[in-house]
Amino acid sequence: MAAVKACNILITGANRGLGLETVKQLLEDSCPKRHIFATCRNPDGPKSEALRELAKKHPSVITIIRLDADDPCSIKESAEKVGSLLGNNGLNLLVNNAGILARGTIQTSSVESMKNTFSTNVIGPLLIIQEYLPYLKKAAKASGTPGMSCSKAAVINVSTVGGSISTMPSLFKQFPVLPYCVSKAGFNMLTVLAAEELKADEILCMALHPGWVKTELGGEKAPLEPKESVEGMLRVIGSLTEQQHGGFMDYTGKTIPW
Amino acid sequence: MAAVKACNILITGANRGLGLETVKQLLEDSCPKRHIFATCRNPDGPKSEALRELAKKHPSVITIIRLDADDPCSIKESAEKVGSLLGNNGLNLLVNNAGILARGTIQTSSVESMKNTFSTNVIGPLLIIQEYLPYLKKAAKASGTPGMSCSKAAVINVSTVGGSISTMPSLFKQFPVLPYCVSKAGFNMLTVLAAEELKADEILCMALHPGWVKTELGGEKAPLEPKESVEGMLRVIGSLTEQQHGGFMDYTGKTIPW
Repeated sequence: MAAVKACNILITGANRGLGLETVKQLLEDSCPKRHIFATCRNPDGPKSEALRELAKKHPSVITIIRLDADDPCSIKESAEKVGSLLGNNGLNLLVNNAGILARGTIQTSSVESMKNTFSTNVIGPLLIIQEYLPYLKKAAKASGTPGMSCSKAAVINVSTVGGSISTMPSLFKQFPVLPYCVSKAGFNMLTVLAAEELKADEILCMALHPGWVKTELGGEKAPLEPKESVEGMLRVIGSLTEQQHGGFMDYTGKTIPW
Repeated sequence: MAAVKACNILITGANRGLGLETVKQLLEDSCPKRHIFATCRNPDGPKSEALRELAKKHPSVITIIRLDADDPCSIKESAEKVGSLLGNNGLNLLVNNAGILARGTIQTSSVESMKNTFSTNVIGPLLIIQEYLPYLKKAAKASGTPGMSCSKAAVINVSTVGGSISTMPSLFKQFPVLPYCVSKAGFNMLTVLAAEELKADEILCMALHPGWVKTELGGEKAPLEPKESVEGMLRVIGSLTEQQHGGFMDYTGKTIPW
């Protein structure tokens, strides 16, 4: 695996599924981490027990922080807390992993499901980038190396092929998840515009499709285990350069069309 | 101009800009119309005066109906009214033209502007398609001709190149309208999934970019007059077949990448 050389990393939705697996694998990475900020909606809830156990074993590296992508206040508060823990250091890698799924077709999708998916999957990451941008900029400036990489400063948006407008029609019968797809297409637009805007600060930004993975979101029928998906994603993340800035790839490194 | 042979047409946002111009040009079309349902947020307001004047001159064709894309109740009520006026006839052509613009970058876009654009530009059209689907199906069934066309049954979503994920990064400096772009990328996803779902009913569905037009939304600097844009769009609409189903074209008929 290409080592993920980022020292200070934040992952949203880190209490389970791909987020939790990412924290685990980062701990085993050949390049040691200073801070892994593992954020989740409810750090004290039953669904965060595995993360709490992991943090107990690595208390100097993992900090669990409350961040609900659907709650702007919690995003702001999390950034203040992370900022104080970072001190004079910047944030090298922000992984926008938290997301929700909602099923529905043209005929069955509800206003509620459209609003909820958009809020968590698009507005949340936008606010997270806004709040954490000062720390990402600090990391980019401090690096002293030219170009872009996740060891310098990067935003990885965990998107999905379900947000690919050109691919999704052929998958819609199998995956009737219109609110999710619409939100993820918006998320992909957010990604490319973020890439455009953050270019001058040399902050890498791209969208990553984890594959169809056996998680609470992906369901039991998914062919991929979280381990394999995250191994692939970290390999991709570790090898990113400015060539992939503003791009859309899957966990094997294959480019996905918009 | 290829004649738009649809008999019964509904256009949202018909009180000004491209919507009003579309109503005007449809009245001059070589193929006479039975019903043009011209919908707008506030039929009695000062911004609907030109539409009211036009309707006075063509009282047997134009019916002005209140429809606020941001208000689900008004969408439902409009569909009931249109249904009763259509009687046993179906709706041949639904033009989702209403839309709002909001400016902003990654750093400056507000939650409010993200929610408002998504509600009017994406959730609104979704609910409109849901409510009007029975009338579109009726028109498709009644036509007796194979294939797809706007004279049979069609949904035209007035989108924008600003919703093109592959094109927009190069335009973002000139047009810092992130909430609008994100909503329109979502709208494009909605369009292709609608196309997929409505295929079996032979209801044509596609996204159309009107060009950058001098309207309240497009602003004074826009190079195109509404007349030229709408002439082009009606030419495209009139010539559509199943070949363009699920596609994304501009007012000149050129395909736009997602």
